[in-house]
Amino acid sequence: MKKENVSDAVIRRLPRYYRQLTELCSRGVVRISSHSLGQEMNITASQIRQDLSCFGEFGQQGYGYNVEELLTEIGHILGVDNNHHLIMIGVGNLGHALLQGFPFTQAGFSVDAAFDLSPAIAGTEVNGVPIYPLEELDEYVKNHSVDVVVLTIPQSVAQETADHLIRTGVRGFWNFTNIELSSGEPDVKIENIHFADSLLTLSYRIANR
Amino acid sequence: MKKENVSDAVIRRLPRYYRQLTELCSRGVVRISSHSLGQEMNITASQIRQDLSCFGEFGQQGYGYNVEELLTEIGHILGVDNNHHLIMIGVGNLGHALLQGFPFTQAGFSVDAAFDLSPAIAGTEVNGVPIYPLEELDEYVKNHSVDVVVLTIPQSVAQETADHLIRTGVRGFWNFTNIELSSGEPDVKIENIHFADSLLTLSYRIANR
Repeated sequence: MKKENVSDAVIRRLPRYYRQLTELCSRGVVRISSHSLGQEMNITASQIRQDLSCFGEFGQQGYGYNVEELLTEIGHILGVDNNHHLIMIGVGNLGHALLQGFPFTQAGFSVDAAFDLSPAIAGTEVNGVPIYPLEELDEYVKNHSVDVVVLTIPQSVAQETADHLIRTGVRGFWNFTNIELSSGEPDVKIENIHFADSLLTLSYRIANR
Repeated sequence: MKKENVSDAVIRRLPRYYRQLTELCSRGVVRISSHSLGQEMNITASQIRQDLSCFGEFGQQGYGYNVEELLTEIGHILGVDNNHHLIMIGVGNLGHALLQGFPFTQAGFSVDAAFDLSPAIAGTEVNGVPIYPLEELDEYVKNHSVDVVVLTIPQSVAQETADHLIRTGVRGFWNFTNIELSSGEPDVKIENIHFADSLLTLSYRIANR
């Protein structure tokens, strides 16, 4: 079903489709044309049809898309039904905020553990997630399946922590450290969250209103 | 200098150029060709030349770009020298994390005040930013210049808070509530941070490795 070489731009639109379809579903919309979906998302109908054609055949001429079906299909493409295992390193304010407020389960991730340097927090739980001392990390990674590590640690230790984890076998990183992490290995996937890019985009829009 | 109708894709690449050039600058790189810059950023040289041509003439045939000059120019286009005024509503874990760790000044924003419901936190300061009780918000907005409001409040009150602030004259929002805020008014600029889009992109890359 999956085509090779799906472009980065298409991949980045998939979560937007998923989000939009989730919202349509919650509003009770049963079917939608590519034209209307495009209007809601501010992209063209032909873009939508082209994007989806990378992954198979969806929708029906003259009927459009069944919202729930398409939501399920895109969720499947995104891997939300894979139950990926995730751990967090660094349970400061940002780590806390994510553990308490972010819907990991909805995105198909189970948060199995978190690790922190501070003795004050190790041994506690945040929203049901056990916090362990950082020195138990290597042992944990050796004995558990870990698909993604959330890095909510200081910038200064970001790259060395990532390098160390890559050596122990971790292959996925969700990076909140505001530095661009790199890895020489193509099977290591790193998703960098760049708050600054978003604020600068807003700055541009305000300055050029 | 500025062309009309710069596409969203170009605008979203500007902060990436800015970030890359900042890094080149800090590495002491004085000039760079569009080809090398493209390689560092994983885009084509012609894309870069096309993007920049939206804003004027940069670089010199056979020489490339002067890194520091281009950084300054793009910073100017992005408005980082405008000293935009920003306030935050909601100083929970995420709000704290941003106040303590995010380089607002570097992005050209001065964080003037924050507001929170909780009496325990109102009256305190976080990283030099005074926290006021939420009931003082309207009075504050009336008497101060506010370019951007950071929304780090619960989802359930996000849209009503935004609507209220728009009525009081606020025209820029940096939205961390994980819901897509809308405003009917074209001069209101909203930048939504979608953590979930990023995690789902990572999920896709892991699932399709």
